[in-house]
Amino acid sequence: MSNEISIVMGSSSDWSTMKEAAAILEQFGILYDKQVISAHRMPNEMFAFAQNASKEGKKVIIAGAGGAAHLPGMIAANTVLPVIGVPVQTHALNGMDSLLSIVQMPAGIPVATTAIGVAGAKNAALLAIQILGISDIKIQEKISRYRNKMHDMAVESGDQLV
Amino acid sequence: MSNEISIVMGSSSDWSTMKEAAAILEQFGILYDKQVISAHRMPNEMFAFAQNASKEGKKVIIAGAGGAAHLPGMIAANTVLPVIGVPVQTHALNGMDSLLSIVQMPAGIPVATTAIGVAGAKNAALLAIQILGISDIKIQEKISRYRNKMHDMAVESGDQLV
Amino acid sequence: MSNEISIVMGSSSDWSTMKEAAAILEQFGILYDKQVISAHRMPNEMFAFAQNASKEGKKVIIAGAGGAAHLPGMIAANTVLPVIGVPVQTHALNGMDSLLSIVQMPAGIPVATTAIGVAGAKNAALLAIQILGISDIKIQEKISRYRNKMHDMAVESGDQLV
Amino acid sequence: MSNEISIVMGSSSDWSTMKEAAAILEQFGILYDKQVISAHRMPNEMFAFAQNASKEGKKVIIAGAGGAAHLPGMIAANTVLPVIGVPVQTHALNGMDSLLSIVQMPAGIPVATTAIGVAGAKNAALLAIQILGISDIKIQEKISRYRNKMHDMAVESGDQLV
Amino acid sequence: MSNEISIVMGSSSDWSTMKEAAAILEQFGILYDKQVISAHRMPNEMFAFAQNASKEGKKVIIAGAGGAAHLPGMIAANTVLPVIGVPVQTHALNGMDSLLSIVQMPAGIPVATTAIGVAGAKNAALLAIQILGISDIKIQEKISRYRNKMHDMAVESGDQLV
Amino acid sequence: MSNEISIVMGSSSDWSTMKEAAAILEQFGILYDKQVISAHRMPNEMFAFAQNASKEGKKVIIAGAGGAAHLPGMIAANTVLPVIGVPVQTHALNGMDSLLSIVQMPAGIPVATTAIGVAGAKNAALLAIQILGISDIKIQEKISRYRNKMHDMAVESGDQLV
Amino acid sequence: MSNEISIVMGSSSDWSTMKEAAAILEQFGILYDKQVISAHRMPNEMFAFAQNASKEGKKVIIAGAGGAAHLPGMIAANTVLPVIGVPVQTHALNGMDSLLSIVQMPAGIPVATTAIGVAGAKNAALLAIQILGISDIKIQEKISRYRNKMHDMAVESGDQLV
Amino acid sequence: MSNEISIVMGSSSDWSTMKEAAAILEQFGILYDKQVISAHRMPNEMFAFAQNASKEGKKVIIAGAGGAAHLPGMIAANTVLPVIGVPVQTHALNGMDSLLSIVQMPAGIPVATTAIGVAGAKNAALLAIQILGISDIKIQEKISRYRNKMHDMAVESGDQLV
Repeated sequence: MSNEISIVMGSSSDWSTMKEAAAILEQFGILYDKQVISAHRMPNEMFAFAQNASKEGKKVIIAGAGGAAHLPGMIAANTVLPVIGVPVQTHALNGMDSLLSIVQMPAGIPVATTAIGVAGAKNAALLAIQILGISDIKIQEKISRYRNKMHDMAVESGDQLV
Repeated sequence: MSNEISIVMGSSSDWSTMKEAAAILEQFGILYDKQVISAHRMPNEMFAFAQNASKEGKKVIIAGAGGAAHLPGMIAANTVLPVIGVPVQTHALNGMDSLLSIVQMPAGIPVATTAIGVAGAKNAALLAIQILGISDIKIQEKISRYRNKMHDMAVESGDQLV
Repeated sequence: MSNEISIVMGSSSDWSTMKEAAAILEQFGILYDKQVISAHRMPNEMFAFAQNASKEGKKVIIAGAGGAAHLPGMIAANTVLPVIGVPVQTHALNGMDSLLSIVQMPAGIPVATTAIGVAGAKNAALLAIQILGISDIKIQEKISRYRNKMHDMAVESGDQLV
Repeated sequence: MSNEISIVMGSSSDWSTMKEAAAILEQFGILYDKQVISAHRMPNEMFAFAQNASKEGKKVIIAGAGGAAHLPGMIAANTVLPVIGVPVQTHALNGMDSLLSIVQMPAGIPVATTAIGVAGAKNAALLAIQILGISDIKIQEKISRYRNKMHDMAVESGDQLV
Repeated sequence: MSNEISIVMGSSSDWSTMKEAAAILEQFGILYDKQVISAHRMPNEMFAFAQNASKEGKKVIIAGAGGAAHLPGMIAANTVLPVIGVPVQTHALNGMDSLLSIVQMPAGIPVATTAIGVAGAKNAALLAIQILGISDIKIQEKISRYRNKMHDMAVESGDQLV
Repeated sequence: MSNEISIVMGSSSDWSTMKEAAAILEQFGILYDKQVISAHRMPNEMFAFAQNASKEGKKVIIAGAGGAAHLPGMIAANTVLPVIGVPVQTHALNGMDSLLSIVQMPAGIPVATTAIGVAGAKNAALLAIQILGISDIKIQEKISRYRNKMHDMAVESGDQLV
Repeated sequence: MSNEISIVMGSSSDWSTMKEAAAILEQFGILYDKQVISAHRMPNEMFAFAQNASKEGKKVIIAGAGGAAHLPGMIAANTVLPVIGVPVQTHALNGMDSLLSIVQMPAGIPVATTAIGVAGAKNAALLAIQILGISDIKIQEKISRYRNKMHDMAVESGDQLV
Repeated sequence: MSNEISIVMGSSSDWSTMKEAAAILEQFGILYDKQVISAHRMPNEMFAFAQNASKEGKKVIIAGAGGAAHLPGMIAANTVLPVIGVPVQTHALNGMDSLLSIVQMPAGIPVATTAIGVAGAKNAALLAIQILGISDIKIQEKISRYRNKMHDMAVESGDQLV
């Protein structure tokens, strides 16, 4: 069985954020691949990746980028698969630039945007898993168990308020 | 066959935005239902809706809200289905409040956020369709045709530059 | 006598902010309880808490949360008690996201919002105390003495300008 | 019985916003008075008002102002009563200036801040009523009925989605 | 002689802004062509355009786009010609989204960004002309005359202050 | 001769910023006094200070404050002397809250606002000196010498570019 | 007696804002002159104006500009007179660009900045008058009378709250 | 052969950013000179520099500045050469002030603006090189080789994702 999820990012420096998405996928036993695909330094590879993703059996693409973050939107423009965009936090503008250049897509080409930074990377993975779960009851059950564990940890964390 | 997509919104005043999502779904022949579910005025209905959505055969939920927009995130907290959040444009802060209170979800509960306003509503529908398309080649073909039409219209629109 | 004030927060990581509210309440000899109630990970507990708060003798609820901070508003939607919201400072957007998703509530369900971070936590406690003081002259006198002490400390702090 | 609530505002031009607070109070049968008290043009009246409010039987003060909105905070500094601040929407910065200069109070002097504009004015009144309701079961019941009516109207508004 | 300047834009709706660039070029007698090339709806044409621009004799490319404005950066990634980006004003965020997604390019691929809206479109044309002027004294003289005329009009406009 | 300039600030923690103003005044040999006058904790002292400043021989007042920074505007409302406001940098919002609550004064009561933080404190002192210089040629000459020294240092600093 | 105040602005389109400053000066019987001096289109005139202002008997300069508003700061760099900067409201960014490019001056060259738009223009005039008033008791008395009138109008405006 | 590129900056503290532009120029073997020219402390030198740049053989000017960053725009106002502006990151506002005061130039005087901080400095150099490359095939080939190297490094960086 080939990987159903691809994690791509604009720079290897985004990996410290995006590896949190990878960790969630591994926790759920979902196969994925990961690559640096820079929209601006590797435009041809980006298009080839996006245009081939569907026929190679991908189901969801997670794309993280920072600053003038064009990667998620440009991949989305070249595939009919759902693309999840993660705004990576940036030095000067804290990721507000990343967020706006990912989320403010024009009508026609959606990018499913998550939060700036690590929380967004984790949620991108969970969103991809929830999407796979639509037609896979086993995955839905795993998500429910994951939620239950989060719930229990949140409940227990109340004891730490000292 | 029951409706696979629900469009919910925090107020009937959001309908002028969210009806654009409905129009796209109709264009693709996707069955959907639509409801006002105010997170703050109808909290119990909101939870009941979210907690039942999966077993009622829903596959994707589109939720639009403005201001302190809690609806998408709170629905997401109560279902394992993917939830798409549309930040409705607001009077004072132009939807920046809506955007941040939808997209900045903490790790654990993702909301797939689209652009502020009408473009976001249209893209929420297209994203939902792309999600359904993962396991439905006919839908993927429809999306491809829709994209081709958008492409051709964009090409032709160049003649209007006079 | 049961606790009249509850401090709730979305995550145990918010405690480093919210404990400043607790410290003020203790300084005034006001009984309170504190709990982690995550809007997104513990939604049912959140509703139960909010819907029972009044009959359990609570008078004011202080709720702190960060990012897409839905806790204060969702509690407010489920109780007729006054709810004070504290926007916790966040990593990427410094609490502007917390502030807007707490303060920009739609007409109908108010949240009394204080400043971002520690100042807001302290003021949430003082606001709760001032609310209790409306019908309790002893508390009003305590507030006046607290104000007088602040006043004197501010006056004396002028000697530090060297 | 004297008025328990005062609505004050920095300028008569704020009345188009603040009258929404007055309308809510009337709807609940709560006695109130209303005045223009400009922090910058009537500073002495402002201090006199604030310093006398408690002994004149006021219980809650609602203060609306725009731009460099100092009125709510300066009143709060001169009374132990709870002060609710309403950021009035402004021409250039849409009320972001009003919001920040009301909500970002330093530790020691809280202002209970509501949303920018009309929603904030309405919610200021509702918050004041909820505060009065803490020790008045009749008011709490009225709030519950008001909430129920809002709930029913929200439910019914779903029929307008055509 | 072929056109040395291309004006491209993401949508025909950008033309009301970008035609101001065209008007300046005409005023200077500079040949140009203009096209709608949507980054998201016409990605292949965009790449073909950018990759061929240099060999077709283009010298400078002016690209206008709004929202998640990827066109200028993606063209820049596919050509060694200088690319000037014009952030088109948008409905919800007034062009702040356009500006950040154009100007915040990562190191390696520059986009010469001008102001939001019409002033930016005019200045994009003037910047292109100034670039051509580096090696063309006649163009430099024209720019000087244009500047002189602007100067004189500014001086004379002082008479309108009545 | 009494002090012509007063430096006041809302908190002793503002002194690390405001002492830069003091240092400039000393460098120019201008007599000044400095005090903590908290708008919110010492409102009566604030009014007394402002209302007496003119008759005590003050000529310019420099007021620094952070967050919901009401001190400069409230002093300005109580004196006909020019008041210079320095927005102190804040933890969460970096001084944008201070800036807006100082500069956005309503028509009628001006505050001469300088930059956020240390640069603003220095410039507040220089502005006060320039104001005194209007009717004092010796001060103007000192400013010119100060400017010349700044000029020479800027020129020489070019040698550091290695 | 020559004019003591100059009002300059970057464009004749700023006059609709800056004429409010002129009206205030006239109301106080202060002589002034007004000119369009574009920093970018009339740089030499700008420098000549600034460098001669002091010897021509000017005492205070009021400079209004919008967008990348360089006029106030560049005039300030060329005179030892106090310069008051008025950020003119702009189309895309509402004057936030004007405000930041006027107020954020580096240490060494102050610009006394007032509010965005008409309120700022009026306050620039009042600030100039207050500066002149330092050494002119008659002007101070006029300011006091002006303030009294504002006060009375504010008091009376309370009757309009119906 | 004289230097074709000048790097100027408002302060020697900007050099830590602007030296990245210098490093790129050196890497390409492009001659340049570098100077501190403070718009506010060295206005006459700034004008002399800008007005002489063209006749001294300069072709492109790179100007970096922070805060109320007037240097790029004021140089642009005094030369017909293309001017590239680099917004230097600032302490309080992270360079948003620098960006807006550089990019928001009025129609007539363009400044080619790049990203905030180091990425912008590097891209300013690359943009200048691309401008020189328009009429120099050797430079274009160098840029292509530089791009190829960037491409290969991006591809190889994918191996670091572990």
